[in-house]
Order: sequence, then structure tokens, then C-alpha cells
Amino acid sequence: MSQYKNRRVILIERAKALPKTELFSVIEDHAPEPSSGEVLLQNIYVTADPGMKGWISNAKNYASVETGATMSSFGVGIVINSNNPNFVIGEFIAMNTGWQEYSILNPETSTYRKVNIDNGPLSASLGLLGHSGFTAYFGLLHVGQPKSGETVLVSTAGGSVGSAVGQFAKIKGCKTVGLTGSDEKVELCVNEFGYDHAINYKGTDQLINEIAKCCPNGIDVYYDNVGGDILDSVLSLMNQNGRVVICGTAATEGWNPPPKGLRFERNVLVNRLRIQGFILFDYRDKYEEALKDIYDWYSKGMLNYREDIAEGLENAPQALCNLYSGLNKGRQLIRVSKDPTI
Amino acid sequence: MSQYKNRRVILIERAKALPKTELFSVIEDHAPEPSSGEVLLQNIYVTADPGMKGWISNAKNYASVETGATMSSFGVGIVINSNNPNFVIGEFIAMNTGWQEYSILNPETSTYRKVNIDNGPLSASLGLLGHSGFTAYFGLLHVGQPKSGETVLVSTAGGSVGSAVGQFAKIKGCKTVGLTGSDEKVELCVNEFGYDHAINYKGTDQLINEIAKCCPNGIDVYYDNVGGDILDSVLSLMNQNGRVVICGTAATEGWNPPPKGLRFERNVLVNRLRIQGFILFDYRDKYEEALKDIYDWYSKGMLNYREDIAEGLENAPQALCNLYSGLNKGRQLIRVSKDPTI
Repeated sequence: MSQYKNRRVILIERAKALPKTELFSVIEDHAPEPSSGEVLLQNIYVTADPGMKGWISNAKNYASVETGATMSSFGVGIVINSNNPNFVIGEFIAMNTGWQEYSILNPETSTYRKVNIDNGPLSASLGLLGHSGFTAYFGLLHVGQPKSGETVLVSTAGGSVGSAVGQFAKIKGCKTVGLTGSDEKVELCVNEFGYDHAINYKGTDQLINEIAKCCPNGIDVYYDNVGGDILDSVLSLMNQNGRVVICGTAATEGWNPPPKGLRFERNVLVNRLRIQGFILFDYRDKYEEALKDIYDWYSKGMLNYREDIAEGLENAPQALCNLYSGLNKGRQLIRVSKDPTI
Repeated sequence: MSQYKNRRVILIERAKALPKTELFSVIEDHAPEPSSGEVLLQNIYVTADPGMKGWISNAKNYASVETGATMSSFGVGIVINSNNPNFVIGEFIAMNTGWQEYSILNPETSTYRKVNIDNGPLSASLGLLGHSGFTAYFGLLHVGQPKSGETVLVSTAGGSVGSAVGQFAKIKGCKTVGLTGSDEKVELCVNEFGYDHAINYKGTDQLINEIAKCCPNGIDVYYDNVGGDILDSVLSLMNQNGRVVICGTAATEGWNPPPKGLRFERNVLVNRLRIQGFILFDYRDKYEEALKDIYDWYSKGMLNYREDIAEGLENAPQALCNLYSGLNKGRQLIRVSKDPTI
């Protein structure tokens, strides 16, 4: 055990529906000593992600967290002890830190990324210049494959992933339409993230007509973070050979038993749609490719982003719960120690 | 007008659910004279296809038939009059003949295919060596993209398309499992079409378990001609990066309003599934590629097929209706004039 007292958030019960703060508990023990080849990080920012709902739910998931375990999350930290010549004290590392104050990196067994703070703020390494940006990049460009002149519809359009999708699509010459959950976010989508149109899906009982009006040439790519009834409606507006990127299912609270929706296969057949699931981890070997483009666009002033930063590890569960009520206005981070770069 | 009295089947009312014979009427007039560049065919076989349900329904379709018009269908005929030097009397042509005794081919505006009867029976040019085979070929190999060793599940496994899918998948080194509608067809699937397993979906109330038992390594490709509840069940058995080819929706009677089913997007996301609609017409420029392979396999004795031939044009509507009650045992054809090759 190291000298460092490590507070961490553990999962004490799996979620049947949306996450609640009672599912988590904060405990304190000592951070482990790094073994040979390992590195000890002091974490600075960790994240709360919409996808965490799935990680802690009863249903099968690609990244399930067991009860009793430290809650998984992305994070960025600073090297404070190194038993590996490739890592120098003071370097910044983004990785799956979990919700805790200190993390061990074993570079042989874990995915990590060194963060160069010359390229942008440290916190952005967990957002636009990190996983959110990568998610938008690969989901849109590799799965959605939009062509210049096409119409791209995005759900949670003002969120950290959605806002990047909209801006990347615009850079690729597409018309962009965003779905978001408040009039305030509609403004944000249009004014900061350059959407041609944005719609407050909570502010209309004619959503399908509103979408159709904003997409007079139909929809070629739907980048979907929510699923549910909106997805059902959108399928009927897709153009021939349209693509639907399934990146999240935030609109559905629980999957056990699976809820019902409109049968989808007729739209898929008649319009030769491609509906494809996308999980960022599958692209982990290609992150540098995304970073290169995103840094390039960012440094030219072509990209905006927003973040919400909660203070203190103990507020991570609440920050997560807030995501599902739409209270956040940007990439949700939790600051677990002072950011030495600001 | 030509000298030839032409009987044809017209659509008198669009279908709200499954096709009925009352929606059609047989009328008689004279076949038109071929204009310059055109060719007159005497039709020999025309087809009844599961997809016709969609062509005559109220819902949007890729190949809608208007009321008052001759029912669309594939067919094969013999050239009996030619105003085009590229077409010789006595040649066989497969094209969209419609349900009628004579058809005009304008090679400038219509898709057609010359049929070489050295390659197999004339009737097979509408089945395994024609559209059924092409549908199986492109849907499986271009959309489903099975790899050797993978498990391919096929619905309507004993039908003209399904039986070809199963055999092509086997040729590509896959394990094949078929879903079909009677014990008799289960035998056919295993004994004639080489499926590793076949399941009578009407004979079990444990379909999902039966499928799981026959696919111990999960399902990599589902070639689906039916949709509906079976599709919902299969989605939960798909392997990571699995592909679902949506080639037909025979299990659903009507789409207006669309019926309900289980929400699908969670399976798509978690297992990174690709669900893709497939319509043969999109591949019309590549038919020769398919023919080359299918002829090759057929000539080596690697492929079996079955056909049901109804006698006389007037029986076409009934032959169509029979498809939806599973009465046919192979590619459903209607012989509208004597086959001169047998």
C-alpha cells in the first residue's frame, strides 16, 4: 500500500432502471503501490457518461461493473510515481481511472493515452479532444459515412458527443439538424455548434412533422444517442440507403423486460437502411487518427465545446443522475483534485 | 395491335393485408405491336413472389403496382417478333413480363437477361439460376458477408431464396441453421439443402431455446425473409459484429398502422450489430457476377432446388395467395404457355 489515502466510489447495487445515488457508496483506503512497470496517477478529472447506465444495469453490457467494485469511468491524472522508464512524473495520462482519487496504470494491460496540454485544456482531453470527440468522429465518419450535401440528424445534439457530431458533419459539408431537450439548448445548438436547425423535442407534440420540415430532402444519416420513440419516428423519414448509427439508448429506462416499439424492418427493407451499433472501444487502436483531425480543426477555431464540472469525488453519483434529467449543459466532469494547468 | 390475343391479370384493388384472389381480375385484349427497336415475347413462365404483398399494398413500396395495371412479375418468354437486330426469334428472355401471355421488351428502357438453356432448365432461370439465386447471392455474400466457420441462420429456409442462401453459406464454409414452417420442410432443408439443423417454427413454443441449441456458438449472420417476433428473438442471440440481412417481412400482414415489437436498439448497440435492408434490383448491374458462380456450383452438382408450377395464367392470383399460407414447396411459377424446351 502506498502513502496515499484513496477515496473511491463503489457500486453497491445494480440498477434496475435509471441510476440513483443510493446505488453508490464512497469508501476510503490506501492506493496500492505501483509494481514494476506500473505507474501511479493522481486523478484530476473523471467523467460521468450516459453509457454508465448500461454498465451498472442488470442487462448484458459491454462494460459491466460488478457490485463491490470501483465504478468505472474515464479520467485524466498526473503521474506522481513511476516504475516505468516510459512514464515521467508530471506527465498527464487519460485512461479508465474509475471514480477514485488515485489509479494504477499498467501500460501492458490497459489502454491509456498521454495527453499533450499544448493542444488544449486538460479537461478537454476527456471531451472534445478525447472520448467524446472520438465517439463522434468514428461513429459519424466510419459508421455513418456522410457525404457532402447529405442531411445528418443528431439526437442529444447539444451534448458532448452530439455537439461534436454536428460540427464534424458541418465540416464535411452536410446539412445538420439537432434534437435536444430545451429551448436553451436549441439556442446553443444553433449559435455555438452551427446546426442549421435544432428542435426541442420536449416542446412539441408534432415532433415527426417538425423533423420533416427541417429535413426537406429527407435524412441520410441519423446519429442516435437515445433510441426509443424518436428513433421509431425517424426511421420513416430516412432516405434510401440511409444510415442509422446506434451510439446510445438513453431514452429507455430499463431493458428487462425489453419495452415495445414500432416494428422497424419494413422501413429497413424498403429504404435499404443500414442500422449499426457503435461502441468507441472497438476503435481504440485508431484514436490517434481521430486526434489528428480533431486537433487540427480545433486549432483553426472550427470547433466549440461546453463542459460542466462538479467539484469533489463524492458528487460523482449525483452528477451521473443529473445526466438523465437533462440538467447538464455540456460534457459532465468531476474534479477530484486541483488542475495544475490552470 | 398485334394479331395475338393477350390475356393478362390486372390489379383491381390494393391490399390492406394479405393478398386475396378478389383483388385481381383477368382481362383479354390484343398484345401491342413491337415498335422500332422493340421485341415481342410469348411468355412461358411467370412467378409469384412473397414480395408481391408489398407491391400491391397501400404502404409505400419500392415497386408499387397501380390499380388497373397489369400485375408486375418476373417471367421468361421466347422472342416471337423482333424489330431489333440484337434479338433473334427463338431466344429466351427473362424480364419483368408481368402476369400476362405476351410482353413487349424495349431493351433501351427495361432490364432483361438473355437465358442460355444450356446452363439449366428454362424454369430455373426464374429460380436458382435467376432472381431467387441472385437474391440469395447478393443478400448473403454482399450484405451478410459470412466468413468460413461462422453460423448462418436463415428464415423461410426451404423456400427458393432461403434454400439457395443455405447452400451458398455451406459452400462458403459456414454452419447453417434453417427456420421453416413444417416437419416436411425440415426434412427437405436437411436432406436436400444441406442445412446442419432445421427447425419447424410452428412446431415449438420454445423457438428461442431451439435456435440457441442449434447455434451453440451464437449467430453471425441472420438472413431474414420474415421479420416479426422471430426477428426479435434472434436479435438477442446474435454474436458481436453480427449482421442481419432484411430481405423480406412476410411474417407481418399489414404495416398501416405499423405493428409493435420488442425495441431492438439495445441489442444493436451492445453487440455492434449491423441490420441492413436488401433489395435485389439495386444489384441489377451485377447479375452476371452471380450467374457465373451459381452456374459453376450448379454444374458441379453442388446445388439443389425445388419448384411448384401452377398451370395457366388464371391461377396466378391463387398461387400468390398460397405463398402466405406456406402451401408451396419451392419456387412458385405459373406456366402460361407450353415450355418448348421440354
